[in-house]
Amino acid sequence: MKKLNIAIIGLGNIGSYLYNFLNKNKLILSKKNNCIPNVLYVSAKNKNRKRNVKINKKKWLKNYLDATKKKDVDLIIELIGGAEGAAKKLVFNALKNKKHVVTANKALIAKYGDQLSRIAEQNSVNLEFEASVCGGVPIIRSLKEGLIANKIKKIYGIFNGTSNYILSSMEKENKNFKDVLNNAKKLGYAEANPISDLNGNDVSSKLKILTSLCFNSFLNNNIHVEGISNIDKEDIINANLLGYKIKLLGCSELINNKIYQRVHPTLIKKSSYVAGIEGVLNAVITEGDPVGQSIIQGEGAGPQATTSALVSDICSILRGNIKFPFSISSKERKKLKFEDISERLFSAYFRFDVIDKPGVLSDITKIFSQNKVSVKRLIQNPRKNKAISSIVIITHNSKDRYLGKILKTVSSKKYILKKPKLIRIDSN
Amino acid sequence: MKKLNIAIIGLGNIGSYLYNFLNKNKLILSKKNNCIPNVLYVSAKNKNRKRNVKINKKKWLKNYLDATKKKDVDLIIELIGGAEGAAKKLVFNALKNKKHVVTANKALIAKYGDQLSRIAEQNSVNLEFEASVCGGVPIIRSLKEGLIANKIKKIYGIFNGTSNYILSSMEKENKNFKDVLNNAKKLGYAEANPISDLNGNDVSSKLKILTSLCFNSFLNNNIHVEGISNIDKEDIINANLLGYKIKLLGCSELINNKIYQRVHPTLIKKSSYVAGIEGVLNAVITEGDPVGQSIIQGEGAGPQATTSALVSDICSILRGNIKFPFSISSKERKKLKFEDISERLFSAYFRFDVIDKPGVLSDITKIFSQNKVSVKRLIQNPRKNKAISSIVIITHNSKDRYLGKILKTVSSKKYILKKPKLIRIDSN
Repeated sequence: MKKLNIAIIGLGNIGSYLYNFLNKNKLILSKKNNCIPNVLYVSAKNKNRKRNVKINKKKWLKNYLDATKKKDVDLIIELIGGAEGAAKKLVFNALKNKKHVVTANKALIAKYGDQLSRIAEQNSVNLEFEASVCGGVPIIRSLKEGLIANKIKKIYGIFNGTSNYILSSMEKENKNFKDVLNNAKKLGYAEANPISDLNGNDVSSKLKILTSLCFNSFLNNNIHVEGISNIDKEDIINANLLGYKIKLLGCSELINNKIYQRVHPTLIKKSSYVAGIEGVLNAVITEGDPVGQSIIQGEGAGPQATTSALVSDICSILRGNIKFPFSISSKERKKLKFEDISERLFSAYFRFDVIDKPGVLSDITKIFSQNKVSVKRLIQNPRKNKAISSIVIITHNSKDRYLGKILKTVSSKKYILKKPKLIRIDSN
Repeated sequence: MKKLNIAIIGLGNIGSYLYNFLNKNKLILSKKNNCIPNVLYVSAKNKNRKRNVKINKKKWLKNYLDATKKKDVDLIIELIGGAEGAAKKLVFNALKNKKHVVTANKALIAKYGDQLSRIAEQNSVNLEFEASVCGGVPIIRSLKEGLIANKIKKIYGIFNGTSNYILSSMEKENKNFKDVLNNAKKLGYAEANPISDLNGNDVSSKLKILTSLCFNSFLNNNIHVEGISNIDKEDIINANLLGYKIKLLGCSELINNKIYQRVHPTLIKKSSYVAGIEGVLNAVITEGDPVGQSIIQGEGAGPQATTSALVSDICSILRGNIKFPFSISSKERKKLKFEDISERLFSAYFRFDVIDKPGVLSDITKIFSQNKVSVKRLIQNPRKNKAISSIVIITHNSKDRYLGKILKTVSSKKYILKKPKLIRIDSN
């Protein structure tokens, strides 16, 4: 039987789990793919770190870049992480030296994916990155293979387990962002430094990759990104009363021949499918022609789910299934113009915490009317024992830039006690 | 660029849609797969039937079996249907003559898949059948590729859109089975002869195929199959009051090293994911190690969804991605023993419509106790203006054969006015 020699670079939780998994499942994977996955080398920054894995000393490379030079290496699995530095060096050199690459590195692919796929294609090797988007959810393979017939008009969903866990917990436990975050860190659902999970950047990288695959376009940095750290429990309670949940959604869509790419907290109807996704789960919804709506849901992170994705990529290479990394050749990928969301229509939720005095409400509603945004619903809640009031406004569909202008104008008013909120509403 | 010559055999709604689709999308599919899908021949039983498709006369084969003999045919797409007759002849001959085969024929694959895959493997050609299970839901490709790393312990879901549409409509419209069925026929959601959709056979074929893929086993006919025609609106109302919905589920599972394969109406908690699947949608849930739970949902039938699946198979062949039809070679597939469900534990819903007279309730509960089935909940509803009563019993977990025995014993009693009901409850 044929054999494929593998080097695993990076042996954190995921690398170690993968190493053990490939060892244990060598036989069944060989049988399924008619080719033996043979882990020949490993490398990691700290060789002596305590790991739950036994590795023969002979397998350790002196320098991680040796993997890109050794003639007996066919496939390099990059598990270093980060868009720059060692990971970048490794993957560029690997592809240049005609090694297949499998990576879980969304930051790298979202930033350098276009260049990397060109090199992979020139050298007829695979560059696979299923594990970079939504962990164990086989969304990339589904877009490239299972749904290959379809012209995708919209892709959206929950692509970050940490932020979804925090929003779910805020609702369930009626707690504020910071309390829930601290607890999530203790429970291992948030990393020690969870910034990119919370500010939308993690979702942004994943969405850019998915967008390229859906629209056969190059990666595009025109993307609106907002995180969840501004959401507080009052917003979640208000949303609930109005029949919504708040979710951090990533969404790319084609509307009247314009593509919009956006990541932001969204009010979404409780009865919708996405509203039901709780905890650390990920879910991706696609709308394609001819298939209609498809949903794929599963575990989005962790060594187990990530290994499931990495192994699906490895098996694809074991079977010799050479594919364009972005589904279509770089020569055929399109330079599409993406639109800023400022001209896109949204209905929105506003919340203003104000001093409760005459004239405030009329001033705010005047600002709405000056910006030609019409109010669909207005709820004023006085706070107990305080001379302050919370005004919640739901608007009809309006251009995003007018919504932003209202937010800016009202923010500067003296009667405003707290940074006002603008959360877009999903119309699905 | 390479070219793959295709013959489409069968030009009903699906065949015609596929023909048009391949014509329109030839360029993009060629680019994505580095190979041109070239429809060279077609054949259909009735050449002169009115179709929404223009086909050059030269493409028509004199006899459909010519496709298996012509040297310039690489791939045959079988869209005749049925486990025997023309479809069987075509696919067996095609594979013997080293033609790739793509089929949407679940009955054929569920019956002859083992033999057919052996021939395909011997001749190094593909036999692909994504479209045979759940239409546009790419579940087969996901099991064979996206989730290849996983040991699947359970697969279940809603695999038949017609029966799900009928159960959903019975609930929404508070109507009985027959009324809803007639309406479904008018609306095109049920075929003129929908027997196999309603008696569970359609789900049974799909489940057998999925089970083989999950457990690396041969197709197995040890399967418990019940349809939905016994469900009436009282059952749906009762289920609703108890916090459940009734769904026709297919399920294969590994419990204590025993495999059970079953298709039957099931009471399932309203809050569960599956309970929320309404109308003609299909959904497949897998529980795998290491990935955990995955869900894939989408359109289960119709020319559009089926074409999406057929084209994914065609593209796999365009890319030269030769795979074992059942994920692993026939030599390695296992002859697993499947267990009858009689020894499996279920809690269950019983409904007895009885003459309302003294002693009936005590007689029924005595039968439960004689069979060592303990009652969790009992509701007796007298019917207005009638001397009859409906007794609903929810049991604790009991062996299926005892549940069946109770049904049989009570059925023969004189106080029984209508065939009693036994519906198993899902414990997820």
